[in-house]
Amino acid sequence: MLIYLAGPDVFLPDAIEIGRRKQAICARHGLTGLYPLDNAFDAATPELSLEIFRANEAMMIKASAIIANLTPFRGPSADAGTVYELGFMAGRGKLCLGYCNDPLPYPRRIAARGEVTARDGVLHDAHGHVVEDFGLADNLMIAHALDLHGCALVTPQQAPDDLWHDLAAFEACVRLAATRLVQAQAPR
Amino acid sequence: MLIYLAGPDVFLPDAIEIGRRKQAICARHGLTGLYPLDNAFDAATPELSLEIFRANEAMMIKASAIIANLTPFRGPSADAGTVYELGFMAGRGKLCLGYCNDPLPYPRRIAARGEVTARDGVLHDAHGHVVEDFGLADNLMIAHALDLHGCALVTPQQAPDDLWHDLAAFEACVRLAATRLVQAQAPR
Repeated sequence: MLIYLAGPDVFLPDAIEIGRRKQAICARHGLTGLYPLDNAFDAATPELSLEIFRANEAMMIKASAIIANLTPFRGPSADAGTVYELGFMAGRGKLCLGYCNDPLPYPRRIAARGEVTARDGVLHDAHGHVVEDFGLADNLMIAHALDLHGCALVTPQQAPDDLWHDLAAFEACVRLAATRLVQAQAPR
Repeated sequence: MLIYLAGPDVFLPDAIEIGRRKQAICARHGLTGLYPLDNAFDAATPELSLEIFRANEAMMIKASAIIANLTPFRGPSADAGTVYELGFMAGRGKLCLGYCNDPLPYPRRIAARGEVTARDGVLHDAHGHVVEDFGLADNLMIAHALDLHGCALVTPQQAPDDLWHDLAAFEACVRLAATRLVQAQAPR
């Protein structure tokens, strides 16, 4: 059973090693993790970024599920490329799972990066833009996509010491995916 | 022909007025804009955020195309909810269009919000995470989703004075959508 491993992990200095660790965890649970960096490209490839896109899309189309690392990246929300991929998989009716190593609700994540003020019972950021306040970890489209197209977002009780290398929440997603995908295959 | 109007516009203080302006532009080009705030909810609705998700998803499923406002929001990338919706529509094979009122390439957007340094020919942000440097406006999944599932990202030559209220790039998308959707309907 193929699982697409989405996340900003690919931008970390040890991106390849993290992919191998994630794939080893998948294998222990009887699943095969597809990691974007498995697609090797020559740096001289013409239209390299387009080829990377095509290869990632082909991996997603092959996979039965996505596990997205939705830990905030360069702002209070998840990595934009990862969120695109979550949407793509939801749109195609695939099983959607995700984890976030930052357990703070969205307004507190924004407050940690700038001022959040209440006006007439509504929260606003420093630019005067409304801040969603539903007790969710990120934009409601992300949180509820997981609820309705897969499994609820997995977050730790407390942020781990190393946000980018702690894979406990990832492994919880793998366990959920293994159970759900086996159920889906069982004869009725 | 129904077009889903995605964007962080819904978080602006004059969100309803912007939606009306966008819908008027669509109507002038023979299209019908579906705007998330058209779904009215009582603030006391149980599970309000889930109902908003369901209503947005139903709108997307009805629409033939999406026009996403991909102007950077709370960071160097587009709004996470909008990007999820772009992915969802691409996954369902709908026509994907988007615009961005900030014409800077992605590394310069990141540099505007913190340090970007080159090491061994690769750009890194202040956290040591690799910065994509393909001359694109945002994460490559977003930019190339538009190239391959619709029309290339529309950006102005120069950022308009008012990033959030200037609708020239939006109108360019509406024009492209009108042409493409009429072509798709024409007998072959």
